[in-house]
Amino acid sequence: MDTDALSHGTCPVARALARTGDCWSFLILREATIGITRFDEFRTRLGIAPNILTHRLKALTANGLLEKRRYSERPLRHEYVLTEAGRDFLPVLQAIGAWGRRHFGGGAMAYTVDAETGQRVQPLVIDQASGAPIGTRPLRLVAPEEPARA
Amino acid sequence: MDTDALSHGTCPVARALARTGDCWSFLILREATIGITRFDEFRTRLGIAPNILTHRLKALTANGLLEKRRYSERPLRHEYVLTEAGRDFLPVLQAIGAWGRRHFGGGAMAYTVDAETGQRVQPLVIDQASGAPIGTRPLRLVAPEEPARA
Repeated sequence: MDTDALSHGTCPVARALARTGDCWSFLILREATIGITRFDEFRTRLGIAPNILTHRLKALTANGLLEKRRYSERPLRHEYVLTEAGRDFLPVLQAIGAWGRRHFGGGAMAYTVDAETGQRVQPLVIDQASGAPIGTRPLRLVAPEEPARA
Repeated sequence: MDTDALSHGTCPVARALARTGDCWSFLILREATIGITRFDEFRTRLGIAPNILTHRLKALTANGLLEKRRYSERPLRHEYVLTEAGRDFLPVLQAIGAWGRRHFGGGAMAYTVDAETGQRVQPLVIDQASGAPIGTRPLRLVAPEEPARA
């Protein structure tokens, strides 16, 4: 995949995907959003090959979703902490999870609750402009050259 | 990636990602949501290698996101139409696009408008239970074994 072309293209979806790379990256971000920061934790929890994990952490760091920080001098150890853009990926993960639950649910599944109220989180993507859930109103894609209608 | 383990795991995000596979799949779904159905159109618009496109279309069909339909007998031709689960992926794509725009915007970018009002769509992932945008309140992940708090 020509991620360079994607990352500078006109489509915001493609720009986003060029930065997250593949499904492992999504799962690494998922772990990061629940507080995982260390290489060995990512590796064990995801069952991911070390070389793939190294590559993905490097890409996520280069793309500004994770920040590599030293937490020990001897031995030299680093951890990976979400940047602002990385933290802001949480809503996307929740939207993906809600979709997965709706269509591929069944059997035991983890879920998210509001930490204060204990109430189960029900992610929904809305259009903030109209207030309507996305998918309930007809949409139209506008190419960047086309002048916006008021 | 062991997609079989992921697709039956307890995490709804992983279940979703196991079905979409990789970034090409997301982009194929993006094209499908704007009405693209034919192999050659996907290929040309995405600049994707035919063998990869064949593989991804087959996986998306097997996973229930696309349905393969014959539209011509002679020559024999098929098209790929979104299933209900596939159509319901639109909000996820919009959430990904909004994130891409926020953090990797700049330069010319396509955008989506409400087809009736012409107003620009502003995707936002909210928790329908609390009404709050996801990311503005502390969340807690609950493993499936743990009994839910009311």
